[in-house]
Amino acid sequence: MAIDYPSTGRQLRSLVTAEGILEISLQDAPVLEPQSTQVVVRVEASPINPSDLGLLFAGANMTHATVSGTVESPLLSAPVDANVLRALSARLGASLPVGNEGAGVVVAAGSSETAQALMGKTVAITGGSMYSQYRTVDVALVMALPEGTSPRTGASAFVNPLTALGMVATMRKEGRTAIVHTAAASNLGQMLVKLCDEEQVPLVNIVRKPEQGETLRTLGAQYICDSSSPSFMSDLIEAVGATSATIGFDATGGGNLASQILTAMEIAAAKNATEYSRYGSTSHKQVYIYGGLDRGPTVLTRSFGFAWGLGGWLLTAFLQSIGPDEVSALRQRVAQGLDTTFASAYTKEVSLAEALQPEAFSVYGRQASGEKYLITPHKT
Amino acid sequence: MAIDYPSTGRQLRSLVTAEGILEISLQDAPVLEPQSTQVVVRVEASPINPSDLGLLFAGANMTHATVSGTVESPLLSAPVDANVLRALSARLGASLPVGNEGAGVVVAAGSSETAQALMGKTVAITGGSMYSQYRTVDVALVMALPEGTSPRTGASAFVNPLTALGMVATMRKEGRTAIVHTAAASNLGQMLVKLCDEEQVPLVNIVRKPEQGETLRTLGAQYICDSSSPSFMSDLIEAVGATSATIGFDATGGGNLASQILTAMEIAAAKNATEYSRYGSTSHKQVYIYGGLDRGPTVLTRSFGFAWGLGGWLLTAFLQSIGPDEVSALRQRVAQGLDTTFASAYTKEVSLAEALQPEAFSVYGRQASGEKYLITPHKT
Repeated sequence: MAIDYPSTGRQLRSLVTAEGILEISLQDAPVLEPQSTQVVVRVEASPINPSDLGLLFAGANMTHATVSGTVESPLLSAPVDANVLRALSARLGASLPVGNEGAGVVVAAGSSETAQALMGKTVAITGGSMYSQYRTVDVALVMALPEGTSPRTGASAFVNPLTALGMVATMRKEGRTAIVHTAAASNLGQMLVKLCDEEQVPLVNIVRKPEQGETLRTLGAQYICDSSSPSFMSDLIEAVGATSATIGFDATGGGNLASQILTAMEIAAAKNATEYSRYGSTSHKQVYIYGGLDRGPTVLTRSFGFAWGLGGWLLTAFLQSIGPDEVSALRQRVAQGLDTTFASAYTKEVSLAEALQPEAFSVYGRQASGEKYLITPHKT
Repeated sequence: MAIDYPSTGRQLRSLVTAEGILEISLQDAPVLEPQSTQVVVRVEASPINPSDLGLLFAGANMTHATVSGTVESPLLSAPVDANVLRALSARLGASLPVGNEGAGVVVAAGSSETAQALMGKTVAITGGSMYSQYRTVDVALVMALPEGTSPRTGASAFVNPLTALGMVATMRKEGRTAIVHTAAASNLGQMLVKLCDEEQVPLVNIVRKPEQGETLRTLGAQYICDSSSPSFMSDLIEAVGATSATIGFDATGGGNLASQILTAMEIAAAKNATEYSRYGSTSHKQVYIYGGLDRGPTVLTRSFGFAWGLGGWLLTAFLQSIGPDEVSALRQRVAQGLDTTFASAYTKEVSLAEALQPEAFSVYGRQASGEKYLITPHKT
């Protein structure tokens, strides 16, 4: 049994030339025959996540981007600044596929039982190269979706849901009991509000605008601190004190937000201290940077003693650390919650070609909360 | 059996007034009767460590310090800037004793066997308030020195030796195999060179001046990188690559040195990578800040992927983490090496009163490598 599918499919590719030009184009890529544990998926929907943009845009100067070629086969070109180019030596001249996750229908399957069982099913998949019409992947990268779930609903079943679950799991592993989250009005942030509510984990949400706070309040968020407010630091200290949060996850990376979170945690901890310690409180405070919305330097004003940590947090490293059984359990939990806790919202659907037009990339490239695009590779 | 000792002794005290004036003075403090597990130590020598200066000077503006009072009972006064004062609310108005460690002779002992066994012995002690002529402390804070060891030799038996041992132990606990150390020409840095040589741990020494590099070369240090050299970054990348160091200990704290160390580790790791990863290498890189020679902001240019950590490192927290048995083993090792691996060098001995004079504090307050002072509280 097989559903008809072509021998090639359109695929989005990102290339940086040695001369420092980013070129994003559509290519015809062969649809690989499935090996025994593989399936071929007709990709129906794939989100543009913040975590895709680094590979897609390569830090190019998109305000100087131009689009040539045809409507069906556009070529997006943009200059890459010399200081950015220096860090890209490993990818110069390589045409790279993009797209962390997606969903679609299994149109062919390898001989193994697990692969055959997926035949005709609507599935979510991960593993890169998802901005493609067809993807041949190992069943280990496939999540069968509950009966009746659409590819659109299942398109974001990996990155954001597993990141939200990973934050709660990391908090528990470190023996902490509450979380601070930045860029909290994002799709991920909204998921985290719902997840923490289910898990009874107090969550301090840091947003950048009053209307983002309103969005979260509607979802039932209790602690919301607006970094644009003059009372931000005192609001943050109060919320951190009320929740006893000692771990933060920061999507911005640059600037002084991580430092402010650590400082608020220290002030909240010092309020409970019985005597003066010149080395700060003994309460260990941790912030993980998991994104780079602000690519500028991270600036720490070390007014939070010596019991603190700052570090990078990466979903793939987290999943490796917990092992396949626990990953499988998390995936099943996601599959059951795609309409509720782990639901994503998209502002626009675009075809592969439309994704390369200025009216699209000037919006999704901004990484603004509430501007999430979905690529539908078979839209014509 | 008891050796004669007075009922009071001179003690150095640091006070910050609500008006923002630092006052350092000498007071007569009662010499407390020893409880059963306590001993009274006539303190003969106590070093001025960088870790003492925060409590001693409270971040006051020492360039505007004045000294009044008498030669035997001076009063040092210095203004504390308003922004510094804000962080000191917990100590305002409290007259605090200073001095992390020292050595002397046990002149009285409590009734317990362990206390009695120390009677008349030369011992090293920790536990604060060491800038005093006499200290009554629990035997848990006492290290009996090998026969014939002078108080001067034993005065720095805790902070620097246990910090050096703690760095190597932390490296091992995290499964790493080589260390990067900054301010490497300090007393601690020289100890670490000798210790790492004994332990066969490759050590990258970062110094700030060519002559400091010479000092370390004389000690046998193999990897020396001078941050004042134009080739510093390439030297550091080469040394980190040669040693495979993935952990650093930074005494400076402020500026971009921690960022440079993480960047060098990432570049060294990327050289061994087989494929381009947009999230950086999977090699986890860690820098601990254990001092604050530069009190300015820590600035991270995040060009080192997501597998990294930065954090505070504090000796007392480390000792708590390993438990009393291992601490005891480390102490015994120090006691045996006070003339060799863990030997300290002092540029000057001063009395308690002399420590409050400009010609002294203007030197030891600079925290320059190679300018270490020893207080001898019974010097007249």
